[in-house]
Amino acid sequence: VNLPEIGDVAPVAGVRLATAAAQIKDPGRDDVALLVFPPGVTMAGVFTQSSFRAPPVDIAERRIRAGGVTALLINSGNANAATGEAGAADARQLCEVLAQTIGIRAECVAPFSTGVIGERLPVQRMTTAVREGVSGLRADGWLAAARAIMTTDTRPKLVSRVVEIAGRQVNVTGMAKGSGMIKPDMATMLAFVCCDAAVSPSCLDEMCRNVADVSFNRISIDADTSTNDAFVLAATGAAGTPLLDDIADRDCAILHQAVAEVATTLAQHIVRDAEGASKFVTVRVVGGATHDECLDVAYTVAESMLVKTAIFAGDPNWGRLCMAIGRAGVEALDTAGVKIFLDDVCVVSAGVVHPGYREEDGARVMAADEFEIRIELGRGEEAAVVWTSDLSYDYVRINAEYRT
Amino acid sequence: VNLPEIGDVAPVAGVRLATAAAQIKDPGRDDVALLVFPPGVTMAGVFTQSSFRAPPVDIAERRIRAGGVTALLINSGNANAATGEAGAADARQLCEVLAQTIGIRAECVAPFSTGVIGERLPVQRMTTAVREGVSGLRADGWLAAARAIMTTDTRPKLVSRVVEIAGRQVNVTGMAKGSGMIKPDMATMLAFVCCDAAVSPSCLDEMCRNVADVSFNRISIDADTSTNDAFVLAATGAAGTPLLDDIADRDCAILHQAVAEVATTLAQHIVRDAEGASKFVTVRVVGGATHDECLDVAYTVAESMLVKTAIFAGDPNWGRLCMAIGRAGVEALDTAGVKIFLDDVCVVSAGVVHPGYREEDGARVMAADEFEIRIELGRGEEAAVVWTSDLSYDYVRINAEYRT
Repeated sequence: VNLPEIGDVAPVAGVRLATAAAQIKDPGRDDVALLVFPPGVTMAGVFTQSSFRAPPVDIAERRIRAGGVTALLINSGNANAATGEAGAADARQLCEVLAQTIGIRAECVAPFSTGVIGERLPVQRMTTAVREGVSGLRADGWLAAARAIMTTDTRPKLVSRVVEIAGRQVNVTGMAKGSGMIKPDMATMLAFVCCDAAVSPSCLDEMCRNVADVSFNRISIDADTSTNDAFVLAATGAAGTPLLDDIADRDCAILHQAVAEVATTLAQHIVRDAEGASKFVTVRVVGGATHDECLDVAYTVAESMLVKTAIFAGDPNWGRLCMAIGRAGVEALDTAGVKIFLDDVCVVSAGVVHPGYREEDGARVMAADEFEIRIELGRGEEAAVVWTSDLSYDYVRINAEYRT
Repeated sequence: VNLPEIGDVAPVAGVRLATAAAQIKDPGRDDVALLVFPPGVTMAGVFTQSSFRAPPVDIAERRIRAGGVTALLINSGNANAATGEAGAADARQLCEVLAQTIGIRAECVAPFSTGVIGERLPVQRMTTAVREGVSGLRADGWLAAARAIMTTDTRPKLVSRVVEIAGRQVNVTGMAKGSGMIKPDMATMLAFVCCDAAVSPSCLDEMCRNVADVSFNRISIDADTSTNDAFVLAATGAAGTPLLDDIADRDCAILHQAVAEVATTLAQHIVRDAEGASKFVTVRVVGGATHDECLDVAYTVAESMLVKTAIFAGDPNWGRLCMAIGRAGVEALDTAGVKIFLDDVCVVSAGVVHPGYREEDGARVMAADEFEIRIELGRGEEAAVVWTSDLSYDYVRINAEYRT
């Protein structure tokens, strides 16, 4: 839904990328991406909270937390999930292959996988692909890498921002994949955002969590979360900025903002490319007593199958919005204080249909590709926003035919 | 899915039913049902927890709790929800009409509505229908009443059991409607179960709650719950049994069992008649440390859109089952202890694909109309079961076209 063309990609000083074809699932495409960083890069990440975490997620998280990771090995087509100790050994072995080829320690490589659950990786073909791929490492390999990590995505997702910090130009570029099984605490979603500012590990970690909370953790397509999700933020320091070490610092705030913009845009692109999506909908909840209750309402509305089918139909079925708000578990919600807007059209006020509301006004808003559902709870000053898509025949078709 | 033909209906001594056509939504069908009981009937109910409760729900709950209700006035086609004080006045007025016509106090009538949200009831047409309907009250009006309360249901839902208590024959008969927006804490679901045993109010209340917890609160079609759900249990005492006053009593246990069977069968019929459903699936979770965690896992699996589309496709996509179990929020779940079965086929053990599992065995199970997904958590002795359906093209079609 209105996925923009990929704009100018700002290469991030110090980051080199390559891709290779290992025929993991589909022949004839690159399905392995390598990202190699200079020594001294700092890295932070947030990872799926699933109990059924894939083995590579555990390895990547452990190594990134320990520090010293300078290379990422990503594959699509196979999630290496529910593969147990054998899957972990496969991931470690492939990291070792990349490490030996570029001359670093195996613990400096973090592995990421996305695709089918429950099958072993084709280690032999991937070994060959990794070894051959290394020769292609280059600073402008972003688009090829963004394509290589795609699964059911119809389009690569790649976003850049350029800012100035302490007189130096800082480039922030990120790529992501994901189009279903998308929901907070991550999704079948991999996102890698890099910048060439110098940032201390603790500061980068805080930035990474903050940014995830306003971007990738604010989208929902089908309420399902995957075994493999990860969002990694890397800072090479190659742009020559002073070391940013305090999240409250003004220079750091400039970077924080740029990273948040890149991540939020990528997150929205994931929803725009959602499986079968024909609509891009912003669910904004304001006037809550707590942030959590606003989020509860926003997610309940965004994930209601009945709301999503009404969005698909372009039907201003505000009764379903009331239904979803009603079951969101907000304690002692007085519906007499609730208002619902479709863009600028007030549909519900005082908990009943708004005087003067005309069905054709609601239908006009919902006929658009994009619109906002705004819910005023009338209980306080808190707010939250979630982006979502509709539930279409194509969603069912794609997920009935595709083997996750 | 395999909805059986309606079997013998056992009239409940003391209960008279009638239907009438008020052209509430569709002309040419009866859309009002009246149930009239003898003085001295006891009644209990559980009601939707939605914050956006429809006005009639509040009125019905208050009057049933107060005691003395001897008539139910039910309509389909219009939920009288999100209608505010005007909607409450409409409901009270219609209760008054029925009360005057049959010569009881207005507070002895409880109103129930299901259908479109946000529109006023056609009070004038309903008044006429109620007045005319009363002349048709009769003991064998169950099937007509079960039809009159239908909305998107394709079939009426009506179940009877006959038991002997203290030498007297006791008939238990119930009807229900609902085929979407179905989920615990009730659904777009109305269910009325009557028996002719004599039961004290407190005992009946306890029985009503217990039964709801193992029947209507154990089904989920789309995780959505409605503004109007209610389950009412009535005991006329006309069969001449002694007064049942202790839930632990042996005679009471016989009745409890019969009521639970009627309610569970009705609940399953609702899932079998789910919007667009092509499969009826039992999700059974065993080996949990707590009942709640078993329920969390069962509901997460039953409500996952990706699991439901895989069920629709007949695809033994166990990776999605792992994904859903993984996100169910079970604390410190050791996936190495998890087993997953499709009927008798072990698909996953020790958290990975079971040795010797063959895809064709899983596909054979899922090709059937009905099967069980059994998940062993390996953490304790608790268990829970939930019944659900698949997510099909028809679900989207029905809900994109139908105005709730």
